[in-house]
Amino acid sequence: MYFPSWLSQLYKGLSRPIRRTTQPIWGSLYRSLVQSSQRTNPEFNSFAVRTNTCGELRSSHLGQEVTLCGWIQYRRQNTFLVLRDFHGLVQVVIPQDESAASVKKILCEAPVESVVRVSGTVTSRPAGQENPKMPTGKIEIKVKTAELLNACKKLPFEIKDFMKKTEALRLQYRYLDLRSFQMQYNLRLRSQMVMKMREYLCNLHGFVDIETPTLFKRTPGGAKEFLVPSREPGKFYSLPQSPQQFKQLLMVGGLDRYFQVARCYRDEGSRPDRQPEFTQIDIEMSFVDQTGIQSLIEGLLQYSWPNDKDPVVVPFPTVTFTEALATYGTDKPDTRFGMKIIDISDVFRNTEIGFLQDALSKPHGTVKAICIPEGAKYLKRKDIESIRKFAADHFNQEILPVFLNANRNWNSPVANFIMESQRLELIRLMDTQEEDVVLLTAGEHSKACSLLGKLRLECADLLETRGMVLRDPTLFSFLWVVDFPLFLPKEENPRELESAHHPFTAPHPSDIHLLYTEPKKARSQHYDLVLNGNEIGGGSIRIHNAELQRYILATLLKEDVKILSHLLQALDYGAPPHGGIALGLDRLICLVTGSPSIRDVIAFPKSFRGHDLMSNAPDSIPPEELKPYHIRVSWPTDSKAERAH
Amino acid sequence: MYFPSWLSQLYKGLSRPIRRTTQPIWGSLYRSLVQSSQRTNPEFNSFAVRTNTCGELRSSHLGQEVTLCGWIQYRRQNTFLVLRDFHGLVQVVIPQDESAASVKKILCEAPVESVVRVSGTVTSRPAGQENPKMPTGKIEIKVKTAELLNACKKLPFEIKDFMKKTEALRLQYRYLDLRSFQMQYNLRLRSQMVMKMREYLCNLHGFVDIETPTLFKRTPGGAKEFLVPSREPGKFYSLPQSPQQFKQLLMVGGLDRYFQVARCYRDEGSRPDRQPEFTQIDIEMSFVDQTGIQSLIEGLLQYSWPNDKDPVVVPFPTVTFTEALATYGTDKPDTRFGMKIIDISDVFRNTEIGFLQDALSKPHGTVKAICIPEGAKYLKRKDIESIRKFAADHFNQEILPVFLNANRNWNSPVANFIMESQRLELIRLMDTQEEDVVLLTAGEHSKACSLLGKLRLECADLLETRGMVLRDPTLFSFLWVVDFPLFLPKEENPRELESAHHPFTAPHPSDIHLLYTEPKKARSQHYDLVLNGNEIGGGSIRIHNAELQRYILATLLKEDVKILSHLLQALDYGAPPHGGIALGLDRLICLVTGSPSIRDVIAFPKSFRGHDLMSNAPDSIPPEELKPYHIRVSWPTDSKAERAH
Repeated sequence: MYFPSWLSQLYKGLSRPIRRTTQPIWGSLYRSLVQSSQRTNPEFNSFAVRTNTCGELRSSHLGQEVTLCGWIQYRRQNTFLVLRDFHGLVQVVIPQDESAASVKKILCEAPVESVVRVSGTVTSRPAGQENPKMPTGKIEIKVKTAELLNACKKLPFEIKDFMKKTEALRLQYRYLDLRSFQMQYNLRLRSQMVMKMREYLCNLHGFVDIETPTLFKRTPGGAKEFLVPSREPGKFYSLPQSPQQFKQLLMVGGLDRYFQVARCYRDEGSRPDRQPEFTQIDIEMSFVDQTGIQSLIEGLLQYSWPNDKDPVVVPFPTVTFTEALATYGTDKPDTRFGMKIIDISDVFRNTEIGFLQDALSKPHGTVKAICIPEGAKYLKRKDIESIRKFAADHFNQEILPVFLNANRNWNSPVANFIMESQRLELIRLMDTQEEDVVLLTAGEHSKACSLLGKLRLECADLLETRGMVLRDPTLFSFLWVVDFPLFLPKEENPRELESAHHPFTAPHPSDIHLLYTEPKKARSQHYDLVLNGNEIGGGSIRIHNAELQRYILATLLKEDVKILSHLLQALDYGAPPHGGIALGLDRLICLVTGSPSIRDVIAFPKSFRGHDLMSNAPDSIPPEELKPYHIRVSWPTDSKAERAH
Repeated sequence: MYFPSWLSQLYKGLSRPIRRTTQPIWGSLYRSLVQSSQRTNPEFNSFAVRTNTCGELRSSHLGQEVTLCGWIQYRRQNTFLVLRDFHGLVQVVIPQDESAASVKKILCEAPVESVVRVSGTVTSRPAGQENPKMPTGKIEIKVKTAELLNACKKLPFEIKDFMKKTEALRLQYRYLDLRSFQMQYNLRLRSQMVMKMREYLCNLHGFVDIETPTLFKRTPGGAKEFLVPSREPGKFYSLPQSPQQFKQLLMVGGLDRYFQVARCYRDEGSRPDRQPEFTQIDIEMSFVDQTGIQSLIEGLLQYSWPNDKDPVVVPFPTVTFTEALATYGTDKPDTRFGMKIIDISDVFRNTEIGFLQDALSKPHGTVKAICIPEGAKYLKRKDIESIRKFAADHFNQEILPVFLNANRNWNSPVANFIMESQRLELIRLMDTQEEDVVLLTAGEHSKACSLLGKLRLECADLLETRGMVLRDPTLFSFLWVVDFPLFLPKEENPRELESAHHPFTAPHPSDIHLLYTEPKKARSQHYDLVLNGNEIGGGSIRIHNAELQRYILATLLKEDVKILSHLLQALDYGAPPHGGIALGLDRLICLVTGSPSIRDVIAFPKSFRGHDLMSNAPDSIPPEELKPYHIRVSWPTDSKAERAH
């Protein structure tokens, strides 16, 4: 058996996970495995010097001679010890008779977390000593021989306490942290989900798994690409951020349906929940449109979804980028709950409230609001104050809280200027209940929406910390966001354009003419997949016409097309229409397992500063090892930067 | 259907592959897929804007309305065109009636290799026009609508001629080269074999697929590791040559059974058949011994082997390193043929031949020989001369050719000194036939063996070019080589030791005492897997005892143990006994497909100088992009080295 459901019991006894959402249900992997195409359980004892795993033994094994290998979890008064492997725990009886003195000595002297091999007989526990909470709780092992395979030195802390320790300590002793059931569960679930994805893509739909290079050439604007010096003076490889060019070239090469579980690299310096290297499920296919890719991905997630969770319902809902901004104030809405942004401009056309009047008198002025359910009950006066301060500090916006229960209009004298008719219209438009609070702001559309989008999430968190169940922790809410703009004004020079996603994204078929007149207004065939408010994937239909690609790169984006001459040439030689997508595997598994950080679903993650705290990478290199690469270190001259060696 | 067997027919008509061994049999993937655990054929048309692939249409589709997408392979007199996709070819009838003038125009004007979509009806070809060599040869498509999806510019050469072009040209236009059936076959076979390996490891035997970092810390003596500058002055990541440390740490972390299709990096400069990045099937498990790993791998290859080839027979034979050297003169013997090295020292104890006398009078002197079957028939006088010259030039050794047919002793006057009794004993020992030639040499054991090992391979190639069938082209001959030495003398200072493989390799259990007395003589628990004379994998049981590991690193190898302190510490904290292996995937697939180079089984390989000829990587980097990494280029000062920009 794989991950029997009792592991959840065991798990609860061991440690409390740092998690915001659901507890993992340990039966999931076992069940999903049983229902996979393989339909047989894996054989965990093949090729090994044990006969059984610790966790698999049951009353059905009574009388069997078994050999087990595992770690000493704990020992009780030199009479019992509990042996652990990845599969679970089992009780081992230490023999007390004189003839077994050497076995007793080994088992009593080995420190906790030492590795031992024991052979013996599976027997029933004496009546009254069964442990119903332990899956192996009806049996125990009468040991005949024992061998100390490796003694353990005193640990820096107990395995079961790992989750309570600082992340830095966990990363430093990652090999110990990995022994926790939480990490074992996360990594095994990841392996299983990816295997199911491969079955779906490769076996069901004829995709070809193709490995693409990671030592490549820099891409235009690839400022976030790691460099790899070569042995040719002044020549560098780059570690690409994605196999984007390669997958398009594969389509030109007639490899129709490509996928890869691709390692990607992005040097963003320190970011709390990003990794310098990460993994994406990278997919591309020819002769496909946007709905084709969307259906493919919906099927993929449905097929690979862990069986202990509610099945994925398809098709996923779709909103346009414009709708998403207007309704949720973000392009990655968390649709597990309501509190949508509502335009209430019409309610206040004749208002006497100054800042509303001001806003509405301007060309694009609007009044917007969100409704906080039971806000009057859950929010405190200081919450409202900090909301207003946040709006003022970060958005230079005013927030007007409106309590529908007239007795509770503390802290909002302006609200007294709201007429009864306006109040009734507000209640109707926003479908509010007596204890709700409406947060109202006014100003330019996108700014007002952005602010309310932020407040919507902040208030949701706040309500939940106060005890409201707003988001069902078992709910996975997928959403497609489509019809993004093709270009955005450059931050450093708003009169120039940059690609909203990447320069290979095809324009929306209805908007191609805009490229030559008002490119800013052109929409793209880009689509994002959002799960519970997190972007977990994105893709697009690509440009397959060389002329159009050249026009966009050279004329609109003013890029150096020489760097991409191979791609442009490829488009000239019979490139099929094609499109694709990439799913962020680390983030997806993080959400599925309910982990607080992607570092909990990666075996050896880097710290948020990009360090490997276990081995101390990156590290200094002796100057002679730099010579073959024709590089020298430019030590910073300012006094603050100390030399590393 | 996947890869129907007619593709082999088609393939023959298209291009002649550059290959030394067998032709691929195109039915292989189809059959292996059908027999996989999935047991259904993949659906190649799901999510796409076509109803069928070009290659799948048969008489059973007659009357069906179909939509096809593909490349124009060729056109015949504006009446037919042949459309191609990855699946095969189909004949399309260009409509001639006036009402279909626009369709005719599209199909007649589109250049070859343009991409089109056509819709129409599957009809029988007129009697007498069937093409039995073409799987779709009984049908054709009566087109109703056509759309030019992308026009193709004039190609640098025809797709079917690709295999005849220089490799540099093929690599420059890789996206065109990929359209050849040979490349399609190679990459699809690779994907399928890896998928089967995953099924075996993950679904059948409970291995966990775990991704390990590629941005890591340099390893001791890691002179072949690419460096990746970080944003911290003077600090570098290294791209590891294998996940060796990580997989051992996973074992310490209780992740029992690990595998990964791992990207690895090795900067060896220019090597004809190596890649700076390559892929290995990386495996590690706990509580296992050498025979356990060997059985695992035998099962893995048996399970994933293409079904059109002879099944893999297990267990594989095993020879020791010492036997391999003595019998084949190499640690990676090609066991598809005999011509073993035989020690014939005893035959010549009383010889009058000077160089044999000399050799045998020395302490470790031997006389060795190999027998060239039908050598008197196939080898020419100048072959024997060049063999003798090779031996003299490269090994400073003499070679004595002995013809058993006494009339043919040209060029070997010394042979007249061989007595009749010696000749008879030689015939008995070496089991020679009348037309055979014996090549005889004398000297120190390992030198004599190395020379004869080289000559054995050279002569085998020679015999085959002369028409002898020595090695069955359908034969895959696996061999384990075991009991390697643990250490070798350092090349630059033979009094110091270096690891024969890597410093984590466990010593042979019988030889542990030798570590403290005569470490040079200690054998290891390393094993190599050899296929047809190529090393395709290697692994070992690892050291799990921290003290032993420290002794070997610090005392015997004189390495700086600080770089590995995390690993040594991990061994102290309850490391289980463990071992593993890595298979070189590129080389394995290269052998299975009978490709002349690993570049034929990699989608986007680097040239032998490490260049990507398509995109021109590695490339120059603007100095300002080096700044964040605190490095500068050290331009070589010698006049020969020209600046790259």
